[in-house]
Amino acid sequence: MPLNEKALVERIRQRAPGNKNVIAGIGDDCAVLQIPAGHEAIVTTDLSVEGVHFRRDWHPPQSVGHRCLTRGLSDIAAMGGEPLAAFLSLAVPCDLPQRWVDGFLDGFATLAEQHRVALAGGDTAESPNGVVADIIVLGHCPRSKAIRRSGAHPGDLVYVTGTLGGSAFAIHELGAKPNRRLAGRFPAHFFPKPRLLAGKFLRQKQLATAMIDLSDGLSTDLAHICQESGCGAEINMPAIPLAATGRSRRKVPLEFALHGGEDYELLFTAPAGRKVPARIENVPITLIGRIIPGKRMFLKGPKGERQRLVPAGWEHFRHRI
Amino acid sequence: MPLNEKALVERIRQRAPGNKNVIAGIGDDCAVLQIPAGHEAIVTTDLSVEGVHFRRDWHPPQSVGHRCLTRGLSDIAAMGGEPLAAFLSLAVPCDLPQRWVDGFLDGFATLAEQHRVALAGGDTAESPNGVVADIIVLGHCPRSKAIRRSGAHPGDLVYVTGTLGGSAFAIHELGAKPNRRLAGRFPAHFFPKPRLLAGKFLRQKQLATAMIDLSDGLSTDLAHICQESGCGAEINMPAIPLAATGRSRRKVPLEFALHGGEDYELLFTAPAGRKVPARIENVPITLIGRIIPGKRMFLKGPKGERQRLVPAGWEHFRHRI
Repeated sequence: MPLNEKALVERIRQRAPGNKNVIAGIGDDCAVLQIPAGHEAIVTTDLSVEGVHFRRDWHPPQSVGHRCLTRGLSDIAAMGGEPLAAFLSLAVPCDLPQRWVDGFLDGFATLAEQHRVALAGGDTAESPNGVVADIIVLGHCPRSKAIRRSGAHPGDLVYVTGTLGGSAFAIHELGAKPNRRLAGRFPAHFFPKPRLLAGKFLRQKQLATAMIDLSDGLSTDLAHICQESGCGAEINMPAIPLAATGRSRRKVPLEFALHGGEDYELLFTAPAGRKVPARIENVPITLIGRIIPGKRMFLKGPKGERQRLVPAGWEHFRHRI
Repeated sequence: MPLNEKALVERIRQRAPGNKNVIAGIGDDCAVLQIPAGHEAIVTTDLSVEGVHFRRDWHPPQSVGHRCLTRGLSDIAAMGGEPLAAFLSLAVPCDLPQRWVDGFLDGFATLAEQHRVALAGGDTAESPNGVVADIIVLGHCPRSKAIRRSGAHPGDLVYVTGTLGGSAFAIHELGAKPNRRLAGRFPAHFFPKPRLLAGKFLRQKQLATAMIDLSDGLSTDLAHICQESGCGAEINMPAIPLAATGRSRRKVPLEFALHGGEDYELLFTAPAGRKVPARIENVPITLIGRIIPGKRMFLKGPKGERQRLVPAGWEHFRHRI
């Protein structure tokens, strides 16, 4: 059955989780929200565009909804913040089946409920071509405690949560033989986990000097930290935790871990003197390199040989899935 | 020249106004913002979709950028709030000329600067077809003072700011003979003014019991107030302030004022005993009806005859421009 806007809004209202900080949610001109005293508001927005970030013939709708919200929650995690409410602006073609929207909202709301994030508003519109979803997440963080990209110093060590390259490798496999049933074998791509607990732990313990989430790929996101902090970095290639994927649990090729995007793991720096746990909230933490003076990034091989590391991550204008 | 994403982000950064409540803006995972003590955060999101909300052959890019931000600011005005920062998620076709984006950002930033609203973040992506812009505005309002849609009571009087129907009439004229130079003759459509000062005045004086902005049209937006407040309304047809448009300054036909959307005027209710000024911040205020018991809306003619008023405003799934 095709959609009309009233039915779409009604479905969103029915499936929208709430929480105690949402004073007014869907159904007024604005949502009204309480930011805890002594905290700052943190806000992120992320687009999910059909044919750019997902394909309807590759991604089950539950995965599209889950990944859409993950994009926003992962940015909150990367500041060490806590999410409060999400807003969803959804433009859909008028012939989109209602069951697709139901699946999308189901994936979205299931993840929202896990993290006690309210769906507090948004907008709907017809899209002449393809689905466009914009996710906005409003979170909070104690005053001046948000972990920025700009705090890294030469001598700091570089860490990542989890494993890298699993999401990009799934895209590679899908390109070779499209198969919607791959979703079960590549959870890192289809149902990535935003690292909210690890981010909050690093902020509470004041361990991280700089942090970013790996949405564009290690080489590109590390370059963002280097640029904002005014420093360089050296990554120890054999230390990079490669994702093990598929039924064989084979490790992905290095290129995917270096340049593949959408892993939604956290990349952070910490002073060399601080002890960083091997696991945070059950997520493994790996030391992969160090911050150096200058502006350049290097990759150090197994025999100590160094090569330049140039940002080559996901850029929407170059790649299409 | 076609766009690449880096150039697009650079252009947005250069043109982004700031303000003192923005602690971190563009260039981190999230923006960090200070909500004034004792205030609540208010948030709104609104899509502007090419072919649904605007046409590139009808609307100059400055108008598209201005109208995009107006949609968000008008929702803040309708709560009696003050805007703090805007976020822009912009999906554009890769062959979109840079000068179109420059024009869009110029219209957007000019309005933002008028209202001291920062552009504090957002996202960019390629769009396979057409421009999609999602505007998010974060504002604030003293605790529990936001003017909701749900506060109208039978006996309250119904008021509007400004004049109605000018925007929809411009669309009608454009449909008859498309001409980009019509922009100068129909400012209500191309460069509508969000009624932030009037909204704030009504909240400060505690005059309005319920408020909404006229984005969908009088009949539809009045129905939203009636539905959320659990009441009906009677509108005095001859009192409706019809917009005067074009070179002749001729009044628009009643249908446009009743059902035409995107005027971005404020519709509010106030107790019968309270004196509402004839102008607020230089915007005329017109008494157009009253709230009644029940759930129905009526239109009262010049001789006192009553007919049912049924919501027939803008719905994206029915109309295309």
